[in-house]
Amino acid sequence: MKIAVLGGDGYCGWATALYLSARGHQVAIVDNFVRRQWDHELGAQTLTPIAPLSDRLKVWQRITGHEIENYVGDVCDYDFFAAMVQSFEPEAIVHFAEQRSAPYSMIDRKHAVATQVNNVVGTLNVLFAIKEFAPECHLVKLGTMGEYGTPNIDIEEGYITVEHNGRKDTLPFPKQPGSFYHLSKVHDSHNMMFACKIWGIRATDLNQGVVYGTITDETAMDEALINRFDYDEVFGTVLNRFCAEAAIGHPLTVYGKGGQTRGFLDIRDTVRCIEIACNNPAGRGECRVYNQFTEQFSVLELAHLVAAAGKKMGLEVKVDNLPDPRVEAEQHYYNAKHSKLIDLGLKPHPLSESLLDSLMNIAIKYRDRVDQGLIAPTVNWRSAANPARGRVSVSEPELKGTPERAALVSSND
Amino acid sequence: MKIAVLGGDGYCGWATALYLSARGHQVAIVDNFVRRQWDHELGAQTLTPIAPLSDRLKVWQRITGHEIENYVGDVCDYDFFAAMVQSFEPEAIVHFAEQRSAPYSMIDRKHAVATQVNNVVGTLNVLFAIKEFAPECHLVKLGTMGEYGTPNIDIEEGYITVEHNGRKDTLPFPKQPGSFYHLSKVHDSHNMMFACKIWGIRATDLNQGVVYGTITDETAMDEALINRFDYDEVFGTVLNRFCAEAAIGHPLTVYGKGGQTRGFLDIRDTVRCIEIACNNPAGRGECRVYNQFTEQFSVLELAHLVAAAGKKMGLEVKVDNLPDPRVEAEQHYYNAKHSKLIDLGLKPHPLSESLLDSLMNIAIKYRDRVDQGLIAPTVNWRSAANPARGRVSVSEPELKGTPERAALVSSND
Repeated sequence: MKIAVLGGDGYCGWATALYLSARGHQVAIVDNFVRRQWDHELGAQTLTPIAPLSDRLKVWQRITGHEIENYVGDVCDYDFFAAMVQSFEPEAIVHFAEQRSAPYSMIDRKHAVATQVNNVVGTLNVLFAIKEFAPECHLVKLGTMGEYGTPNIDIEEGYITVEHNGRKDTLPFPKQPGSFYHLSKVHDSHNMMFACKIWGIRATDLNQGVVYGTITDETAMDEALINRFDYDEVFGTVLNRFCAEAAIGHPLTVYGKGGQTRGFLDIRDTVRCIEIACNNPAGRGECRVYNQFTEQFSVLELAHLVAAAGKKMGLEVKVDNLPDPRVEAEQHYYNAKHSKLIDLGLKPHPLSESLLDSLMNIAIKYRDRVDQGLIAPTVNWRSAANPARGRVSVSEPELKGTPERAALVSSND
Repeated sequence: MKIAVLGGDGYCGWATALYLSARGHQVAIVDNFVRRQWDHELGAQTLTPIAPLSDRLKVWQRITGHEIENYVGDVCDYDFFAAMVQSFEPEAIVHFAEQRSAPYSMIDRKHAVATQVNNVVGTLNVLFAIKEFAPECHLVKLGTMGEYGTPNIDIEEGYITVEHNGRKDTLPFPKQPGSFYHLSKVHDSHNMMFACKIWGIRATDLNQGVVYGTITDETAMDEALINRFDYDEVFGTVLNRFCAEAAIGHPLTVYGKGGQTRGFLDIRDTVRCIEIACNNPAGRGECRVYNQFTEQFSVLELAHLVAAAGKKMGLEVKVDNLPDPRVEAEQHYYNAKHSKLIDLGLKPHPLSESLLDSLMNIAIKYRDRVDQGLIAPTVNWRSAANPARGRVSVSEPELKGTPERAALVSSND
């Protein structure tokens, strides 16, 4: 199958592109490397030294004989993106090309606006390009379990049947996202459902949990294929960050009581879920939603698992309960369904000691690259502006919004 | 009370600003006149000849002695908007400053993107400015009944209590909006709920129905105070458009079967609802939702009411059932609650023959200004690009999205 992986230079995107390529799919990566630029903005670097994409792709071809095409550009640039769709003619588009950090979106107004505009406009462009140039193409879009928030009822997969005043309907599951980033994914989901309805687009919205791990069979083939491993407070997700902290002797940074419960999955399951979604396309006009995670944990449970694994390796691991920089329930009911991908053949990799060992060993191997000053949380949800160490300011906003909008207001300049 | 009316030069905004000023509130209008520019883009003009805002305000002051301050600028320009908040120090901000036409948002990709970016970024700016510079200020934001779509259950006011698998929670009412414009309001609603939660902002989200009428006590005081009356297919809403059609001998343009049922209200109730919301501010952190309409009608019912009123005036009124340019149910269940504003004191003006007569008389008075070529629907929801008569093309999108976003990707140029 011809599959375009948008954001294919990123953490999930890179592992996915290689996995699909290894299975014989014809893969194109579409990326503008903005994720690498955000590292520079934040003064943070992935724990693992990742190679430039051009080098990665050369090594992949040398080792496996599989060529991955490379389209360098911005999904928000419709001329570029539409040309890619017409040139590559994808049967499936896997859309990872979004700003995906909640703390990044909460730094200040500019980062909130940038996140929502980037993600919403990018996804609108993908929908319009499919409608105009590839109407049979199946969109596999990465959402997030964070779209649902933490309701006091079971979370279904995208839709819920509601009985109310003697009548019944199946409706989109109500969304209570917890950051401007998570909100951007909710906006995307609504836009997608509508585009499927009016244009008959095929779409699968994968509400992914928190991904952990870094190694897949493919990224392990050569040092040049190594995947990102983010440990910093902005882009580092909780389990990877805890393992890095344990490895370098930093206390585990539990936010608040640590009762925050979320869905988690191994990156080896991420890549398999994407393939399953691609191999089972949605029907015309169908907007499917799958909850893409394998296990639920509370943050404190994860901290204890990491502490125990560290102890076994001779590490002394302390757990710090820091004031929660986020506004979220620290204790809550959480029960999210996640059977649809398993019904389609997913065989989960449950969280194991060996995975924790592996993550800690990676962190130990690259410990000289760690900047401990990047671990403590500095982005406070309660503040509208969070200036932080090493963070260069982005330039001033101008008057006009996007060029599309600017054209509509130009006579008021 | 000091009240800033964003979009105060528009249809609802102008009537609201005068109504609040007449009641002794200290009013400031914030507007960049982009609504007037869209008229030029579409080659359409309001049926009623509206005066420039500066003239309107001079006449208002001469007649009533009330001064309305005028801040000319774009809510999407944060420097401008934050300066306005710091200078005027509003106790309430009434936010009408959005692109509000569903067909306009469905013209093509550029108009969809422009609508969503304009509305989402504007509302984000309002939320951040309140948080940073006026934390006690009450945001009165115009949403739309169209956020809910047409579910097969009763529509509640913003939230619904759901029982599911033996547990219960009160959650945001699921949203199924029917255009990129309506989607932008759903995005706004989610952003607002979140900002109220994390920052303790006071907000009232008014999900307004379709407004009809043009005259209020205040706009009737002088010809220079006359309000807009849009009859064209893009900005003309259904009842006003039907009355204009009847007056000029054009068949009433019913889309499809006309079974589409919606909530409606007289513009005299719009202005009163806004005052009620301002006089009863939400608590800190509260995001209230009121459904702001007074009666439900199907489109075909309205056509028959207008035809009967026309007949009484000696007009022969034909009804045309055109193919529906929108993707929507033409027959459906519809029962939306709307008691909260009535509980706070709203005394509705139900739709009357005299109102219909008045609208038709206005249309007859200004019939020489009507361009009949602007009435037939040309924006088709099923098409991703709708080039239309008299519509100038907006300039090409460039590469970078908003300036905020551009700053983050600038090294990739």
